[in-house]
Amino acid sequence: MRIARFSIDGNVAFGVVEGDASTEGGPVLDIIKGHPFAEFERSGQKIPLSKVRLLPPVLPNKVVAIGRNYAEHAAELGNAIFDDQGRPDAPVAFFKPSTAVIGPGDPIAYPSFSSEVHHEAELAVVIGRMCREVPRERVKDVILGYTCANDITARDVQEREKQWARAKGFDTSCPLGPWVETELDPSDLGIMCTVNGRQRQLGRTSDMVRSIEDLIVHITEAMTLLPGDVVLTGTPAGVGPLNVGDEVAVTIEGIGTLTNKVIKRG
Amino acid sequence: MRIARFSIDGNVAFGVVEGDASTEGGPVLDIIKGHPFAEFERSGQKIPLSKVRLLPPVLPNKVVAIGRNYAEHAAELGNAIFDDQGRPDAPVAFFKPSTAVIGPGDPIAYPSFSSEVHHEAELAVVIGRMCREVPRERVKDVILGYTCANDITARDVQEREKQWARAKGFDTSCPLGPWVETELDPSDLGIMCTVNGRQRQLGRTSDMVRSIEDLIVHITEAMTLLPGDVVLTGTPAGVGPLNVGDEVAVTIEGIGTLTNKVIKRG
Repeated sequence: MRIARFSIDGNVAFGVVEGDASTEGGPVLDIIKGHPFAEFERSGQKIPLSKVRLLPPVLPNKVVAIGRNYAEHAAELGNAIFDDQGRPDAPVAFFKPSTAVIGPGDPIAYPSFSSEVHHEAELAVVIGRMCREVPRERVKDVILGYTCANDITARDVQEREKQWARAKGFDTSCPLGPWVETELDPSDLGIMCTVNGRQRQLGRTSDMVRSIEDLIVHITEAMTLLPGDVVLTGTPAGVGPLNVGDEVAVTIEGIGTLTNKVIKRG
Repeated sequence: MRIARFSIDGNVAFGVVEGDASTEGGPVLDIIKGHPFAEFERSGQKIPLSKVRLLPPVLPNKVVAIGRNYAEHAAELGNAIFDDQGRPDAPVAFFKPSTAVIGPGDPIAYPSFSSEVHHEAELAVVIGRMCREVPRERVKDVILGYTCANDITARDVQEREKQWARAKGFDTSCPLGPWVETELDPSDLGIMCTVNGRQRQLGRTSDMVRSIEDLIVHITEAMTLLPGDVVLTGTPAGVGPLNVGDEVAVTIEGIGTLTNKVIKRG
């Protein structure tokens, strides 16, 4: 099931996406009564997807992101992720704040303090219930579903500043969407990033160094995750620069496409 | 003016603290009508401070913390903060999530994944209004006031993991309180940390490498700060380990004392 969050006539609502581009008349949203994190039902009241403005599918309190989780990408930035015995190092975990989150179609505002902003296509895990110290076998129970993310990064600032709060936490640096897919096996999905229609990144989630289970165990060993919090799972090889005017699209098999345009900050 | 947030009979309220330990009958709270971030007035309805449970004085959406902002502390951890020309490097900015925040008297739960947890006494700046790209001369306008913070740090994890999300973001790692002091010149305040009554850290905010103005300009160049967000300004020399059973207290001149006990995680 695909759950979208959207605004219509000034109201915010959730709806279940029915159909796709091949459906006659296009996909529609069946408006939800209740809330996706609790009990809900479909109202039967349907709106064409083309008539609404999609919003970020969740409003995370925090986004916990993981760096260097695809070996080929770590190598392209010159980072080792395995120790002498060939075991992966501890995951690199960092935060993106709620103020960085934007939705599908929202503009990425090129930050004033960087001259090298990169795209990083990522599978995003949406947390469905409050959890802490989640055992590996319970990880699936705390996940509501999956969406696409773009871990927009000021690469020059990331190299200059030891911690990445500014390099990866600036406003508009966390596009999420277009919706949450709740029925999906995330273990082997194609993930792609295009810029102006040309492929930049291509990978499969099966190439992650640490699994989603590993990541949720690692994060919740330290901290509570709340409903709507998001875990970004790392990016495959092929990251590269974005310029003002570019249209960047993250497509994940079984989910859909998250598209954002880069604008000059006003 | 000192604004405290507290719970009484299951309700959460704000109040203005009147009097201190020397006042006959002890300090009282004059309950606020309205909200500290907007228009408010004192109701005249007063409760002894001793009858309420103080809560974290604000509920930050995010805490932006600054590392290595006192030269002597940076040196004690072996970190250089000045370049060859004696100019300070860019501030080290990182996030502590909302789930790390606790209030005065709340327990610090020793995390399972660390065996070296340190105290770091810090002056906390409480943001009063939504702001971005704040010019230096407007910084004072976006500040509601100041409180005490303890940037509890799993030092061993911090050394092991390249980004500090777990080392400085675990649950209970951000005690804040006891209240927000809104009328205070923060430029030269004594700041002290004691453990079980014995002094561990002692410094003055005048020894900060970068001023509060510098930090707010630096942070808001990248990201929006929201009312209730908190900026931690770095810790003076003398950081050291905490053990289960310890009582750690951060005292800042003109504000008060934030006390927390370290417990074993249940």
